[in-house]
Amino acid sequence: MLADELQHKIDFKTKPLGALGSLEQLAYKIGIVQQTVSPELVNPHMVVFAADHGIAASGVSAYPQEVTYQMVMNFLGGGAAINVFCRQHGINIKIVDAGVNFDFPPGLELIGKKVRKSSRNMLEEPAMTLDEYSKALENGRSVVSEIAESGCNIIGFGEMGIGNTSASSLMMSKLFDLPLADCIGRGTGLDDVQLLHKLHILSEVIDRYPYLVTADEIAQTLGGHEIVQMMGAMEEAYQKNMLIMVDGFIASIAVAAVWKKNPQILENCIFCHVSDENAHQKLLELLGQKALLNLNLRLGEGTGCALAYPLIQSAVNFLNEMSSFEDAHVSNKD
Amino acid sequence: MLADELQHKIDFKTKPLGALGSLEQLAYKIGIVQQTVSPELVNPHMVVFAADHGIAASGVSAYPQEVTYQMVMNFLGGGAAINVFCRQHGINIKIVDAGVNFDFPPGLELIGKKVRKSSRNMLEEPAMTLDEYSKALENGRSVVSEIAESGCNIIGFGEMGIGNTSASSLMMSKLFDLPLADCIGRGTGLDDVQLLHKLHILSEVIDRYPYLVTADEIAQTLGGHEIVQMMGAMEEAYQKNMLIMVDGFIASIAVAAVWKKNPQILENCIFCHVSDENAHQKLLELLGQKALLNLNLRLGEGTGCALAYPLIQSAVNFLNEMSSFEDAHVSNKD
Repeated sequence: MLADELQHKIDFKTKPLGALGSLEQLAYKIGIVQQTVSPELVNPHMVVFAADHGIAASGVSAYPQEVTYQMVMNFLGGGAAINVFCRQHGINIKIVDAGVNFDFPPGLELIGKKVRKSSRNMLEEPAMTLDEYSKALENGRSVVSEIAESGCNIIGFGEMGIGNTSASSLMMSKLFDLPLADCIGRGTGLDDVQLLHKLHILSEVIDRYPYLVTADEIAQTLGGHEIVQMMGAMEEAYQKNMLIMVDGFIASIAVAAVWKKNPQILENCIFCHVSDENAHQKLLELLGQKALLNLNLRLGEGTGCALAYPLIQSAVNFLNEMSSFEDAHVSNKD
Repeated sequence: MLADELQHKIDFKTKPLGALGSLEQLAYKIGIVQQTVSPELVNPHMVVFAADHGIAASGVSAYPQEVTYQMVMNFLGGGAAINVFCRQHGINIKIVDAGVNFDFPPGLELIGKKVRKSSRNMLEEPAMTLDEYSKALENGRSVVSEIAESGCNIIGFGEMGIGNTSASSLMMSKLFDLPLADCIGRGTGLDDVQLLHKLHILSEVIDRYPYLVTADEIAQTLGGHEIVQMMGAMEEAYQKNMLIMVDGFIASIAVAAVWKKNPQILENCIFCHVSDENAHQKLLELLGQKALLNLNLRLGEGTGCALAYPLIQSAVNFLNEMSSFEDAHVSNKD
């Protein structure tokens, strides 16, 4: 019933049938999630999870590990891209220390959820113990649980973590049983030689853990703290029936891992952009999703979500504010 | 010098080189147009030109001609999609009667620039006489000239006119010497039979005027009043060094006609979206342009511009507000 009413409301706006393209599908999706023909976006939030990776010591990134904590300081100072775009669109931003290899001074506006200073080096042992993994999931959940109290009904997740495209490629390879080479990219800017080195290192990791099957095993062994906290956060956002804005490759991997456990999560997800990181396009196809933006971004931080947010608002606005053919006395197609 | 400074400023923001993708090229373009490393968008405007087409009598559209004036009333009442999106982003909207086949009552907030009630039927005679064509160009110019006095430095153009994808397809075919079938689409929603009929009618028109060569001859003979006024408006916007937001198929045809006379116009143009109308993708390729959005829109009115506007603002904002590696004490790539 609601589905029919929603589609009718969309179809009888003063425009040719389907002329607002993806925005129409988006309006429909949001209406279904919120179970209303007049949805609204309340108190939007962006949560950026930051953590370090043991594997970073093996030279899989173009940047040194210290960039993770330095960028956290940049987020807190308001000078990163995600700050600029969230300010522009009135999106609340929260920064979470999910496992940065640094002792932050007290008094910062940083949500402390560190389970361990960086993940363990996957070349030697699983990225997390089972206990660490459970705590990371739970910590991610708790962040969203608190935000939900503000009435927020749309939330995006970003990440910062030198080395985290490596963890994501490994997870993708195992989650979808794909050759590693199909799941790998240049991250923040590796050249050809560095890319080969990355492939070599990650192949060693893959060979070390032939027994991984479930999403939880895969995320515990090959993930990173910001990825796993994001998984917990997404699970909680789904349970609170929030709209979930999905950013690029790393955030989509977190979705994919949750989706393996609970396919319904996709009902609440809005895939905001397709990244310039090679494997992201393929990952979206595997999830059967089309992203709103394709701007060749490869920054993470949730920037794709923040940039797509006004489109999501536009979908809601046209549904609520546009005249119908009848209201506006406009002749419809014969 | 400015070009180097701009590129340096973009490259040393706290993000991997090129990680903001298309937004970086956009920021660079805007900086070059405004000749500054700190550009700004001032008093953005959207001008919607509406006019009727003699050819509409031949059944080339899915909607009756009266929809043109009805939609103008809808624009003036604030209930159309373009109103909703302009309100959302603080864009001033102006509606121009460029040749609607209707006597509007006085007292409306409508800019009266009508040269004639609808273009002439191209099946019988050129769409405009030379005198009508010149007046239409001039009227378009005068609209922008007045808006420029408000300090506006970014302007988008939309259109409404039942039958105007037909005029645009004809112009494209002649401007680029392409078979008509490559330039035609379903407009606001023709079915297969209707599409064949449209192709048949437009082929008759094309055969009637084998001698057209210049952009002016083509636009005068095959254009429409909203398209030609848009051409004049774009020329004026270029002369005033404004940024020009280009909407879908019809607006891009107006750009293409101006570009034939003055290729430099592209320096100021931001192609906002690629339309679901078949020929638009090809037209963008012919102009060597990539659009910001691909949302399968096919509405016109300038909606693609209004939806892309926040991305343009984001390009300006990251350039002005993001920290550099040095400012934020973030380590750069080795």
